[in-house]
Amino acid sequence: MPGAGPVPGPERQPSLNDATRGRILFGGDYNPEQWPEETWHEDVRLMKEAGVNSVTLGVFSWAKLEPRPGAREFAWLDTLMDLMHAGGIGVVLATPTSSPPPWMGRLHPETLPRDENGQTEWWGSRQHFSHSSATYRHYAAAITEDLAARYGGHPALTMWHINNEYCTYDWGDEAAATFRRWLQDKYATLDALNEAWGTAFWSQGYDGWHEILPPRRAHYMKNPTHVLDFKRFTSDMLLECYVIERDIVRRHTPHTPVTTNFMPMWAGQDAWRWAAEEDVVSVDLYPDPRDPFGAQNGALVQDMTRSQANGPWMLMEQAAGPVNWRGVNHPKPRGLNRLWSLQAVARGADAVCYFQWRQSRQGAEKFHSGMVGHAGEQGRTYQEVKRLGAELATIGAEVTGRHITADIALLHDWNAWWAGAQDGRPSCEVDYPQVVRSWHRALWEAHLTTAFAHPEHDLSAYRLVVVPQLYLLTDAAVENLLAYVRGGGTLVCGFLTGVADEDDRVRPGGMDARLRELFGIRTLHEWWPLDAEEHTECDGFRGTLWSEELEAADAHVVSHYRSGELDGLPAVLRKDRAWYVSTLPEPAALRDLLADVAAGAGVRPVLDGLPERVEAVRRGELLFVLNHGRDEVTVDVPGTHRDLLTGATVTGPLTLGRYGVAVLKP
Amino acid sequence: MPGAGPVPGPERQPSLNDATRGRILFGGDYNPEQWPEETWHEDVRLMKEAGVNSVTLGVFSWAKLEPRPGAREFAWLDTLMDLMHAGGIGVVLATPTSSPPPWMGRLHPETLPRDENGQTEWWGSRQHFSHSSATYRHYAAAITEDLAARYGGHPALTMWHINNEYCTYDWGDEAAATFRRWLQDKYATLDALNEAWGTAFWSQGYDGWHEILPPRRAHYMKNPTHVLDFKRFTSDMLLECYVIERDIVRRHTPHTPVTTNFMPMWAGQDAWRWAAEEDVVSVDLYPDPRDPFGAQNGALVQDMTRSQANGPWMLMEQAAGPVNWRGVNHPKPRGLNRLWSLQAVARGADAVCYFQWRQSRQGAEKFHSGMVGHAGEQGRTYQEVKRLGAELATIGAEVTGRHITADIALLHDWNAWWAGAQDGRPSCEVDYPQVVRSWHRALWEAHLTTAFAHPEHDLSAYRLVVVPQLYLLTDAAVENLLAYVRGGGTLVCGFLTGVADEDDRVRPGGMDARLRELFGIRTLHEWWPLDAEEHTECDGFRGTLWSEELEAADAHVVSHYRSGELDGLPAVLRKDRAWYVSTLPEPAALRDLLADVAAGAGVRPVLDGLPERVEAVRRGELLFVLNHGRDEVTVDVPGTHRDLLTGATVTGPLTLGRYGVAVLKP
Amino acid sequence: MPGAGPVPGPERQPSLNDATRGRILFGGDYNPEQWPEETWHEDVRLMKEAGVNSVTLGVFSWAKLEPRPGAREFAWLDTLMDLMHAGGIGVVLATPTSSPPPWMGRLHPETLPRDENGQTEWWGSRQHFSHSSATYRHYAAAITEDLAARYGGHPALTMWHINNEYCTYDWGDEAAATFRRWLQDKYATLDALNEAWGTAFWSQGYDGWHEILPPRRAHYMKNPTHVLDFKRFTSDMLLECYVIERDIVRRHTPHTPVTTNFMPMWAGQDAWRWAAEEDVVSVDLYPDPRDPFGAQNGALVQDMTRSQANGPWMLMEQAAGPVNWRGVNHPKPRGLNRLWSLQAVARGADAVCYFQWRQSRQGAEKFHSGMVGHAGEQGRTYQEVKRLGAELATIGAEVTGRHITADIALLHDWNAWWAGAQDGRPSCEVDYPQVVRSWHRALWEAHLTTAFAHPEHDLSAYRLVVVPQLYLLTDAAVENLLAYVRGGGTLVCGFLTGVADEDDRVRPGGMDARLRELFGIRTLHEWWPLDAEEHTECDGFRGTLWSEELEAADAHVVSHYRSGELDGLPAVLRKDRAWYVSTLPEPAALRDLLADVAAGAGVRPVLDGLPERVEAVRRGELLFVLNHGRDEVTVDVPGTHRDLLTGATVTGPLTLGRYGVAVLKP
Repeated sequence: MPGAGPVPGPERQPSLNDATRGRILFGGDYNPEQWPEETWHEDVRLMKEAGVNSVTLGVFSWAKLEPRPGAREFAWLDTLMDLMHAGGIGVVLATPTSSPPPWMGRLHPETLPRDENGQTEWWGSRQHFSHSSATYRHYAAAITEDLAARYGGHPALTMWHINNEYCTYDWGDEAAATFRRWLQDKYATLDALNEAWGTAFWSQGYDGWHEILPPRRAHYMKNPTHVLDFKRFTSDMLLECYVIERDIVRRHTPHTPVTTNFMPMWAGQDAWRWAAEEDVVSVDLYPDPRDPFGAQNGALVQDMTRSQANGPWMLMEQAAGPVNWRGVNHPKPRGLNRLWSLQAVARGADAVCYFQWRQSRQGAEKFHSGMVGHAGEQGRTYQEVKRLGAELATIGAEVTGRHITADIALLHDWNAWWAGAQDGRPSCEVDYPQVVRSWHRALWEAHLTTAFAHPEHDLSAYRLVVVPQLYLLTDAAVENLLAYVRGGGTLVCGFLTGVADEDDRVRPGGMDARLRELFGIRTLHEWWPLDAEEHTECDGFRGTLWSEELEAADAHVVSHYRSGELDGLPAVLRKDRAWYVSTLPEPAALRDLLADVAAGAGVRPVLDGLPERVEAVRRGELLFVLNHGRDEVTVDVPGTHRDLLTGATVTGPLTLGRYGVAVLKP
Repeated sequence: MPGAGPVPGPERQPSLNDATRGRILFGGDYNPEQWPEETWHEDVRLMKEAGVNSVTLGVFSWAKLEPRPGAREFAWLDTLMDLMHAGGIGVVLATPTSSPPPWMGRLHPETLPRDENGQTEWWGSRQHFSHSSATYRHYAAAITEDLAARYGGHPALTMWHINNEYCTYDWGDEAAATFRRWLQDKYATLDALNEAWGTAFWSQGYDGWHEILPPRRAHYMKNPTHVLDFKRFTSDMLLECYVIERDIVRRHTPHTPVTTNFMPMWAGQDAWRWAAEEDVVSVDLYPDPRDPFGAQNGALVQDMTRSQANGPWMLMEQAAGPVNWRGVNHPKPRGLNRLWSLQAVARGADAVCYFQWRQSRQGAEKFHSGMVGHAGEQGRTYQEVKRLGAELATIGAEVTGRHITADIALLHDWNAWWAGAQDGRPSCEVDYPQVVRSWHRALWEAHLTTAFAHPEHDLSAYRLVVVPQLYLLTDAAVENLLAYVRGGGTLVCGFLTGVADEDDRVRPGGMDARLRELFGIRTLHEWWPLDAEEHTECDGFRGTLWSEELEAADAHVVSHYRSGELDGLPAVLRKDRAWYVSTLPEPAALRDLLADVAAGAGVRPVLDGLPERVEAVRRGELLFVLNHGRDEVTVDVPGTHRDLLTGATVTGPLTLGRYGVAVLKP
Repeated sequence: MPGAGPVPGPERQPSLNDATRGRILFGGDYNPEQWPEETWHEDVRLMKEAGVNSVTLGVFSWAKLEPRPGAREFAWLDTLMDLMHAGGIGVVLATPTSSPPPWMGRLHPETLPRDENGQTEWWGSRQHFSHSSATYRHYAAAITEDLAARYGGHPALTMWHINNEYCTYDWGDEAAATFRRWLQDKYATLDALNEAWGTAFWSQGYDGWHEILPPRRAHYMKNPTHVLDFKRFTSDMLLECYVIERDIVRRHTPHTPVTTNFMPMWAGQDAWRWAAEEDVVSVDLYPDPRDPFGAQNGALVQDMTRSQANGPWMLMEQAAGPVNWRGVNHPKPRGLNRLWSLQAVARGADAVCYFQWRQSRQGAEKFHSGMVGHAGEQGRTYQEVKRLGAELATIGAEVTGRHITADIALLHDWNAWWAGAQDGRPSCEVDYPQVVRSWHRALWEAHLTTAFAHPEHDLSAYRLVVVPQLYLLTDAAVENLLAYVRGGGTLVCGFLTGVADEDDRVRPGGMDARLRELFGIRTLHEWWPLDAEEHTECDGFRGTLWSEELEAADAHVVSHYRSGELDGLPAVLRKDRAWYVSTLPEPAALRDLLADVAAGAGVRPVLDGLPERVEAVRRGELLFVLNHGRDEVTVDVPGTHRDLLTGATVTGPLTLGRYGVAVLKP
């Protein structure tokens, strides 16, 4: 397995195993402040009935814990911690710092974020804090300290949950000051900053640090490296907030693991760097039940989270039914909650949790489903949750702690995303997450198990490395790719890779010369981005989104463009084990291309001959087979297995009904 | 007829009859400030020629009347009042308070509204006042006082017109202060407020009144009850502004009726509460001449306004030709102005007025048509206005003061609209006004005369009560519906009814238990909102917009879902006289369903066998028949009538040409 | 040729000839600050190889020249001026005032513009200056003075380039003060202003100058004449900024021509007024290579710029390949850069320049192509530039200074555009630039050479005057049109012409009475704007966008409406030589109509029988023939010519390959 990336990992540290202890964690966010105390007892009864063994408390409790500055009201939480413990339910205790109480904004308006246009984000919702506010950080540390001191020794405590979905921004004056400090740390001198940002263009040269602002609303396009550094800074400031709280709880409870919940493929956090600071990597995952690629999107997030965790991970939030933040919020059809929960387990989750336990009757999320919905105990949602809890209990001991091996790494880097997503680029149709999804989908549909890796990770353990698009590559990353291929690896790169260096400076020739040499490309004359619904004909397939006017040197041309201005020029080319794909092939073509390259690199699908919409994953010695279709399917599984869910022995053809799952042990 | 609703009406009060005196008021807004004095005399000549008997003066005259603080310039208005009187034209005199003079914003910037984002609405347009500004209210009261003192006894005065289209908002600091006062009046204690708003969620608990702000721009979704109360507050503050001015003019002229002009189905005012404070209910009505449902939309507004008025009402503004505020502003084809004017009379209007008399040559509304357009006296518009004026004079004595009887009530409540229209709900495709329009359209197309009522009104006079969608229902309203059915009434409810209580707290089970019992529903498992263009098959029709996973108890299932996940589950069900419709049937299906239910309740169409696009309404003993099509139609009218418009005797088949109208007296 | 319009031109002044001296200027913006000094020498080598004889220096150099207030760093520019001179390359020296250094915004935040909503446009991009800021103007004048003093005598200097693409706005407080000064100059008294703006409507009467603000964010529509005057003011303030700098450099170098580069059909500058203040009229031209009307749009801008220049003009900026500010930025196919460059020469350009010489590797425009692209010397782009440079050198002596004669004038006025583009008008589908493009396209497709003229220009030299749409016409303009027709001219007017006077006051009857008389129209009853995709049938063609309910007096009706409400009414009518077109005929119909009218006025196409997509232009005695298609075409050219590009003799049929061009000399 690859290393932890450029950020050094901690030495001995607690892990998810310290919380699971052979059970899959099952439960969810529990916000009992919303309910009278009699409901708490009813909750415990239903939790136990449903096999819930873990709840997350306190995520949004700051105003309740500290109703006015410095006050502390812990009694209610004492009761709940004891109640959970008595019920045999572990507590993931959250610091409540994602939603400051109203008094903070009123007494300290400088804690409120300002957006790019200078508009304040007021209290009355959540996440109305500036990551750069010393006042906010002070209050957040104080309540964290007191929580850790009070509950660090409580027997119900199993894990710390810092803040919630870190996702704030600030373009205000205090953020400007911390941005300058961050830039001074990074660049040391203004000359270095001016050089890195290319301020010679458009008369942007800075003569003093105090002249630098966050990239606020401007007349025209902003300096792209200024914006890129501001994104890095924002991720880093949020990480600073996290680390401050983590260090406090770690001081009190060195053996209790700490996490903060990611949002999947979230632009605001460089999760490679963040994961290195966590004991447990957790994620919130909400695919749209109507999305025809919901299962694959889930798999992508699960693969990425597992790769960030270097092993088992925690599904911190999912929805038992509909969410409430889409335009139209569809419920989950019967069986889908179970299917997608077991998919997460198949792909490495040792915890299956929800937002939230009991659906709210008031507030902004009252139409977000809960494990116990508005329909209550008799509702279909709770009934399905209860059955799932029982199944997870059945398989827990065989599953938890097991690892997944992947021969393929898909490279992803937030810096490349951030740099490539700016204004003033060749095509606004190129959407980095969508390109990554397209390549992952091709691998998923080819039944190839894939890990994610950072471009500077050690890649030597992989047989195939796939780069959907890394517009920005550091020199170290370029050298890493070259070394990987020199070492016998097979590399497939998509277009817009290796264009810029780490300062978003375009490399001479418009693409790194070492990569051009690697692929056998002499000259990259022009990019020919395609319009939204446009296609280009190539030998054997149609390309979308992009095309290129390339002149090959010593490459083998695998496929040529066959229409328009580029007719006869190379579309896909390779030089030995290094492939370059200058367009986005349509889905089936990309799937077949990657399956072929993988086969050439000695990588086989998990199972041969799998029907469409059936997913197979090996976790440890277990083989998970999942039917994402609504029709019954039959799958050939060589050998004899026991299905841990049913206890049945499976030899030869395995039949799975609608949304059916088998967990097969040899 | 049902009562006046939850707000008690005044005792003895003047009414529209005091202004009409047997004539239909005909005329419009007159803004003579725009024209030289010689034009005024020409105007009187043309008004008299056109049968104009009423003009509204002074709506936008504040800067002219009070060019600097405290100044008064009445001479020009004296002249005009006298001129109107001499011409036999009554004056609806407006307080000019909807558009303060420029000096007010300059000297008192705190009178300017701030929007949700903190941005100021500057002067230079109109309606740039904060409803909460003490300074604004002071100046508005002073000019109203002086107008009432000076013109209260003028013989031309027939009615007071307070302000114009109240529609402003304010999220600024003075509004914050009045919002806190309003909340203290409502809740008395912070505990009650925190409980009602559900502030336990997301750490929003308030520890002091001063911590509460208007629901300003925030990072994520706002507290829905906070937003709901802010909408109630906004309507109430505007109403306070109205009442202040009304009480001033009433003190001077206790026998002169007072109105303020509504916009139809306007989200910003709870018109049930407002109407109770008016002597005359008036409305501005501007259907798009190109809208294929323009006539039905007009009928809806007319039915609602009549119901708010409990009798005859005033069409304060309509357009003789095009408006100027749509994207593409279509003129009215020949005959349409007459048709829609007579439709208003058919549905209870005793006044047919326009914005404005003479089309502006300057300013923001110069492309909004007038009764005298840019083409002047020879223009088609004025020529048609003149003919209409003569016709209204012919029928006036037989029409004015007559009432309309409806056996059907359609329930509507602003609180339900406001609460249901928030962010974070199941489907953004569900648009309350559009749902109401769909149900009213079904009734209109079935030729069933409908009244509007508030859910807490006495409903016992109606044979059928229709609830398109009342997401929020107070306990009193729920009990009112139950009592209505117990009393023998027939009730039809659409989906998303009875979900929340008056604080927008979801009722246990997701729908009020008493209503579930009423309809025979055991469990509401999940809502299945439909995507924009999606349909669902049901027995006998197709549903749109919404579907539901329902489990019936003792209901009779009238129609089942017949596709998708809900196949076989109930779509439409009833228990005795209580019907529940869990989707939005396509138009013809909803029309037929309601016609059947109405027939079952003993309610018949106005006439049998009416062709499509022909409307029939009984007002008093008169029968109005209107052809909204461009082709000639023949209608069977039993008995013998005299057509008041032509004087002809009508026996048996009645033929109406394009846009033709008959006003038949037995 | 027509006169210079309402603004008197200067007496003796330098001109483009002073810079060209018989050569076509070829080169572009050069921003050497971006590159190390060694690249400068490489640049000179490549420039000379490519025939570059002119570069523009200093456009964005302010922070480099004045890194802190009052500092001056000229050494680097000295080096470059000398280097260019040594290389035989002339320098168009820019004042750097379009992008102030960061210190200016920090020390003087009042120099930053505020938008309509009060939001600041911060530094970090470009053009972050308020045209009204005395501080900005002070610093801009000082750096201009010092540049002019230092380089006025440098032998490389050929022209001054003031600022860059003037395009800023300001609604802030200092702009409010200068707006009031501008209004006082214009109106002298508040009464006059109130009368012109029609403030009597909506209570907008001003009682003191200090009450007037820029038309900031408001509750509803703004006063249109207020907005119109603010647009005039904005153009005038920018022009003041230009004139201040021009006068400084003129004082130092009275014989060096001065320009500032326009953006084509840019709403922010009344270019008729601006051109009168320039020695050289220059423009930046960036048609989309994918636009099927790219060539015609280019021709339009070229015709307009030539008309503003009254002779040869300068193409200051174009792109050698893709730009980077569209959504999808397409490169130029092989040959297109040459074709469009020669098209500019054909239509009067004596300078063919680019933004920019060497494509940036950093900053906001790094994906905007350069003459030397990222692919460098071997890239297709540079190779094509080099060939073009050689061709321009070949034809330069025969081309420069030659004039183009047009018998047709198309009238255009910014005031009409500004007044007609406001909120609250009959149809938002009517887009003035699009209407002008439609009419120019019809003339271009009919191969009729067209000039642009201001409606108050002397039109007597033209045989045909075409008015696509002049919503606003001053009395002088109306009289000018009448005199033109009286003098024997043929006039064709499109709809929405002559509606308003110079204060945007609608003329009685909705269209100027003198024009109605001219066209033989009795009454304009109503406008019937069409919806986006709607058509109306007329005799012989289909109309789009608009139709009218007209009553003819003594006009001859050329075509009637044949559908809908207007069936039988006049669509196109004429009275002698005055034509009125009340709809927008579909393209081929408008082309044929104008070709017929032109023929009737004695105007012939440049060549008869030209294939579609072939353009022919006579410049002096030369005949340019350009093939805008990708297929080979053959053109009949009467007589014998020499093709200056190839040296070949052409007699009879001329064959042009894809994007082929011939420059034929008799």
